[in-house]
Amino acid sequence: MKVMALGPHPDDVEFLCAGTLAKYKARGHDIAITVMTRGDVGSPTLTRDQIAAVREKEARASAAILGAEFFWLGCDDEFLYDTPDLRRQVIDVLRQFAPDIVLCPDKDKDYHPDHCRTGQIVWDTHVMPPVRLILTASPACERIHDIWYYDTLAAIGFEPEIYVDITDTWETKVRMLNCHESQNTWMKHIYGVTLADNSEAQSRLRGLQAGCRYAECFRRAHEFPQRVARDGLLPWAPQR
Amino acid sequence: MKVMALGPHPDDVEFLCAGTLAKYKARGHDIAITVMTRGDVGSPTLTRDQIAAVREKEARASAAILGAEFFWLGCDDEFLYDTPDLRRQVIDVLRQFAPDIVLCPDKDKDYHPDHCRTGQIVWDTHVMPPVRLILTASPACERIHDIWYYDTLAAIGFEPEIYVDITDTWETKVRMLNCHESQNTWMKHIYGVTLADNSEAQSRLRGLQAGCRYAECFRRAHEFPQRVARDGLLPWAPQR
Amino acid sequence: MKVMALGPHPDDVEFLCAGTLAKYKARGHDIAITVMTRGDVGSPTLTRDQIAAVREKEARASAAILGAEFFWLGCDDEFLYDTPDLRRQVIDVLRQFAPDIVLCPDKDKDYHPDHCRTGQIVWDTHVMPPVRLILTASPACERIHDIWYYDTLAAIGFEPEIYVDITDTWETKVRMLNCHESQNTWMKHIYGVTLADNSEAQSRLRGLQAGCRYAECFRRAHEFPQRVARDGLLPWAPQR
Amino acid sequence: MKVMALGPHPDDVEFLCAGTLAKYKARGHDIAITVMTRGDVGSPTLTRDQIAAVREKEARASAAILGAEFFWLGCDDEFLYDTPDLRRQVIDVLRQFAPDIVLCPDKDKDYHPDHCRTGQIVWDTHVMPPVRLILTASPACERIHDIWYYDTLAAIGFEPEIYVDITDTWETKVRMLNCHESQNTWMKHIYGVTLADNSEAQSRLRGLQAGCRYAECFRRAHEFPQRVARDGLLPWAPQR
Amino acid sequence: MKVMALGPHPDDVEFLCAGTLAKYKARGHDIAITVMTRGDVGSPTLTRDQIAAVREKEARASAAILGAEFFWLGCDDEFLYDTPDLRRQVIDVLRQFAPDIVLCPDKDKDYHPDHCRTGQIVWDTHVMPPVRLILTASPACERIHDIWYYDTLAAIGFEPEIYVDITDTWETKVRMLNCHESQNTWMKHIYGVTLADNSEAQSRLRGLQAGCRYAECFRRAHEFPQRVARDGLLPWAPQR
Amino acid sequence: MKVMALGPHPDDVEFLCAGTLAKYKARGHDIAITVMTRGDVGSPTLTRDQIAAVREKEARASAAILGAEFFWLGCDDEFLYDTPDLRRQVIDVLRQFAPDIVLCPDKDKDYHPDHCRTGQIVWDTHVMPPVRLILTASPACERIHDIWYYDTLAAIGFEPEIYVDITDTWETKVRMLNCHESQNTWMKHIYGVTLADNSEAQSRLRGLQAGCRYAECFRRAHEFPQRVARDGLLPWAPQR
Repeated sequence: MKVMALGPHPDDVEFLCAGTLAKYKARGHDIAITVMTRGDVGSPTLTRDQIAAVREKEARASAAILGAEFFWLGCDDEFLYDTPDLRRQVIDVLRQFAPDIVLCPDKDKDYHPDHCRTGQIVWDTHVMPPVRLILTASPACERIHDIWYYDTLAAIGFEPEIYVDITDTWETKVRMLNCHESQNTWMKHIYGVTLADNSEAQSRLRGLQAGCRYAECFRRAHEFPQRVARDGLLPWAPQR
Repeated sequence: MKVMALGPHPDDVEFLCAGTLAKYKARGHDIAITVMTRGDVGSPTLTRDQIAAVREKEARASAAILGAEFFWLGCDDEFLYDTPDLRRQVIDVLRQFAPDIVLCPDKDKDYHPDHCRTGQIVWDTHVMPPVRLILTASPACERIHDIWYYDTLAAIGFEPEIYVDITDTWETKVRMLNCHESQNTWMKHIYGVTLADNSEAQSRLRGLQAGCRYAECFRRAHEFPQRVARDGLLPWAPQR
Repeated sequence: MKVMALGPHPDDVEFLCAGTLAKYKARGHDIAITVMTRGDVGSPTLTRDQIAAVREKEARASAAILGAEFFWLGCDDEFLYDTPDLRRQVIDVLRQFAPDIVLCPDKDKDYHPDHCRTGQIVWDTHVMPPVRLILTASPACERIHDIWYYDTLAAIGFEPEIYVDITDTWETKVRMLNCHESQNTWMKHIYGVTLADNSEAQSRLRGLQAGCRYAECFRRAHEFPQRVARDGLLPWAPQR
Repeated sequence: MKVMALGPHPDDVEFLCAGTLAKYKARGHDIAITVMTRGDVGSPTLTRDQIAAVREKEARASAAILGAEFFWLGCDDEFLYDTPDLRRQVIDVLRQFAPDIVLCPDKDKDYHPDHCRTGQIVWDTHVMPPVRLILTASPACERIHDIWYYDTLAAIGFEPEIYVDITDTWETKVRMLNCHESQNTWMKHIYGVTLADNSEAQSRLRGLQAGCRYAECFRRAHEFPQRVARDGLLPWAPQR
Repeated sequence: MKVMALGPHPDDVEFLCAGTLAKYKARGHDIAITVMTRGDVGSPTLTRDQIAAVREKEARASAAILGAEFFWLGCDDEFLYDTPDLRRQVIDVLRQFAPDIVLCPDKDKDYHPDHCRTGQIVWDTHVMPPVRLILTASPACERIHDIWYYDTLAAIGFEPEIYVDITDTWETKVRMLNCHESQNTWMKHIYGVTLADNSEAQSRLRGLQAGCRYAECFRRAHEFPQRVARDGLLPWAPQR
Repeated sequence: MKVMALGPHPDDVEFLCAGTLAKYKARGHDIAITVMTRGDVGSPTLTRDQIAAVREKEARASAAILGAEFFWLGCDDEFLYDTPDLRRQVIDVLRQFAPDIVLCPDKDKDYHPDHCRTGQIVWDTHVMPPVRLILTASPACERIHDIWYYDTLAAIGFEPEIYVDITDTWETKVRMLNCHESQNTWMKHIYGVTLADNSEAQSRLRGLQAGCRYAECFRRAHEFPQRVARDGLLPWAPQR
């Protein structure tokens, strides 16, 4: 199976679904990470181009931990818009990787504008990758992927439908978060905490909700037609 | 695995989840059907006791098609209330069968009073079967079941989260519906249709939504702690 | 009275409200159909211009069955955006036909991007046709129309407020759907069904909900000021 | 046509739907008012029985202005519960009057406990009046009524679906409100306003929303099967 | 000012709002804690009466840390119902303490049946304490309190409106939680964690959301009439 | 403290939050009003440029009553879009004035397209004014403001969270509304009412809900991180 996560900024995938990606990886599936914007307002000292270059390098290092394919769309941070060009870029990335599962921000529940637009674009282009009359650099693919929305930053306003226990991939998630040194330095300076500190607070709460130590959580995008579960039954878990 | 469906009236389980029960049965799981009320206002000619006796017989015949265990709680039709006694009866039935999965009406989305109360009681007693200090005729069991809410009659107001393709168990569902002759006769007389006619209209629409011929659909009850999917991943299905 | 339906693609009006349009027509009202996009990705073999030409012809034939005025806006399929130009085009069409009632997709409940944008544009331009300082090719009209949102494809996520019994215009609806041969051929090839097959599944379910054989359903757009019912009372129907 | 309004307390019908009742009356329809509780905590000086007697007299005087049939169920104010007995009382009143339309509080949107329970009981008993095996003092009737929920006190939390312009029956509504002298005296003493003062503030706002001077507003109860509009079309009003 | 928190079970107040109570206490306000049920199913070894006695002692010790008045209503754990008697008990407690602010579970967002009923009863009796014709052991009071709903267990389904930074009262909250030894022993045995461990996970997440270390959160009950903020302006906080 | 209100059209701030602005002013705080569009379709006789000039003059006169700073963005009425340029204009205005509190339309509850876009842009740019790498004419400011959404026109679809009693600033609000002579003349001609007449109907209803004569109401924008109340406690008000 192939799983792609799309992040609005260079560290969102790490913060919100890296534990789940690592779990898929550990079971032998292929992973890709797509970053929409170049994170180019995230520095107190550098220029936009300088910080963008730093953040791309950090994000590539993080993706390398999972052996993930990496796509960098390079949009302007905080100014992501749904345009025909960007839709075609997203369709093209989906055609190149041909994922079975796509993880992205929730178009309806997320509150950050770049997150909302990312989720909206993924949703709006959902059925387009196999449509041959929509032209992009890559040829149409066969597959239509399943979309799952990941949690919001600080869990604000999100209502989880499905939890993934990431206790056994928690260390990998932390290593990926720690690749983002430029952000850690800044946050440490202003707030006295790192990305991993905040991520731990959120993953612990999600774990408390799911009866495990660390968890990530997701909502199903209600596509048409709607998928049935893998084995055709209800996705039940044996009692803990 | 053991699956129990609770129906407010003698034909609700058949109409709303029999295809799914049959699917579980076909894979070797154990099934039980619990009927809350005795359906004793459902006749244009008989007395309450007479129609109740007829309907119990019909419901038992229907359950027998699945080889399902059968529990008949005998409450008054259209006058189901959440009382301590009824809660204890439901807990006792759950202790006797010890299901892994429970299917019942949606406490929040259903619109029929007996359906709402059934869903509410199942929800409210969720964690009680293993609690030894809550006394009923049967001893406390070990297991806490997973709750799934089934569709509403005529699909009014329900927002499905998970679909089950019941194309291959459709005929079994029809045979079970046809056991309810007393209701079919009445409906045929007044509306010119049978239970199976209406069920086909609803199952076809749910199938259209899920990309198959016939489907039933469900919502997850958001219990605490919340379960993770059987294999620990997202409950994805390969592309149709 | 004059009734206009706006469809994002050439067959949406047929699928979602043609029975209601036929009912208005049968009572002597004037009908118009406006198609937003030219449906130019809907073919496995033709070029975009070729399939667009085919679909316009099919849509005109379908509209002709109702004797409906026909407006073809020619936007790109799957890439509909809310732009000032498109708003002005929609306002101009509304000025030309001056409808009392407008039927369109639900801006809040629909899930297809072109449907959402169509509903949004109709909503956003609601009070503009009579505003003389908003310039389009046609002069400002007098009338402000009432907006009703029609159902979604496969009834996903829609919560009906009002039903229209279309049993007596069902055959007309099927004839209109059958005009869309290019789509029927394609669907037949991939899924083994026609537009009319799917439409029947949906119309039967809506009929089941409304106590009749076939129905279509609608939600009221909550405009300001809000209209009162035609006779000033509650829109009650005599008991069936 | 026959229209019944049910009020939790002796002045609720006047405050929330009397203008609409007067409009039906003026067109020759029959009206009934049912009061659930006896309003027996509504006095700073009298005993419970004394104030209950006063309020019944006031409510009867108010109903007489419309020539309305009057039903007084006599429950305890602020302690209304959904019991089998009260359900049977409500069914019996519905059988006696056999209304086509029933107006009552919104079971989902109202916030006062007695209002919520009234709406819930009306909803829960919706299909029961014609069911012969549900026994009450009166025989089963033929008719199933349509339910409309009226506004909440002070318009808090209510989302109107349909407005009725009551400008021409406003004076009647005020006369009915003024029958409730015991409450007016008390409110005047504590807050310096009368029922009619508060009702005017609310009716003016509802009028502003509907483009007229005074209005009342309603939501449709989503019963099954759901009714179609009186003339089978959408309940449109000519442009104001 | 006087602040009362009502908890369905003996440790709920500690888990969900003790930090806020401690903050009020520290500023010189009076605190009361009311426990609805006697927590009499919460033991793997004791009888119902034995565990109830233990838990009352633990809860009193916890309340003593705040110097809080303590009310013990003694209802059956897991079987809390809205009855006239229990409403009167709650009204009486409110009359005895005459709080300005009441904290309780959210009647709409909480998911535990005893929590929902507690919130519902507090809501339903909101205006009753000053009503002289509603008789309880204590005389009617003057005051109508403000109601705030506290968080749910594990933060499931709750949408916070207002946060309170409890970093400086966190230690007090932990001491109060630790009074509940019977529950800690049990949880430690089954899950390997204490109440304070789980509470820390939840308080950290709420702190992350509010930009501080530990927080508790609340929703406003939308009573009528609705209060304005203390100083008549918007309840703004200076920038952190 | 500094308070800025943003209005989509020249009279929206007056209609929806001027009483609150006047209250802040009376307590010595600084006020600013920003108008997004130039109101250039609002005349039955003038050209777009002429009516825009008139309305700017009216809006400036109204702002002068409060001694408010005034920003006029000059966008096209009824055609407001979220563009990078407009976002930068809004950020620049926020940097110039550096407000603590911002009042604007509700991005989720408002129904007028220009109102929705205004609320959306304010929301989307929330954290940007202090971000130095986002360049506008003015330098980055230090402060991040708190956002409050004001009521909708005619109170349609808005669910208030906080009320402000504006009885004592009502006269100021009316004087400000009366500055908009061009609109009053037009409305008087068509509907026979003035802005102040409609505003009185709305402010009276909001007052009824809040237990005072005239009120305005607001919802909190759920920013991240979320603020705590000014004094760190719940924003309670002493009993009226």
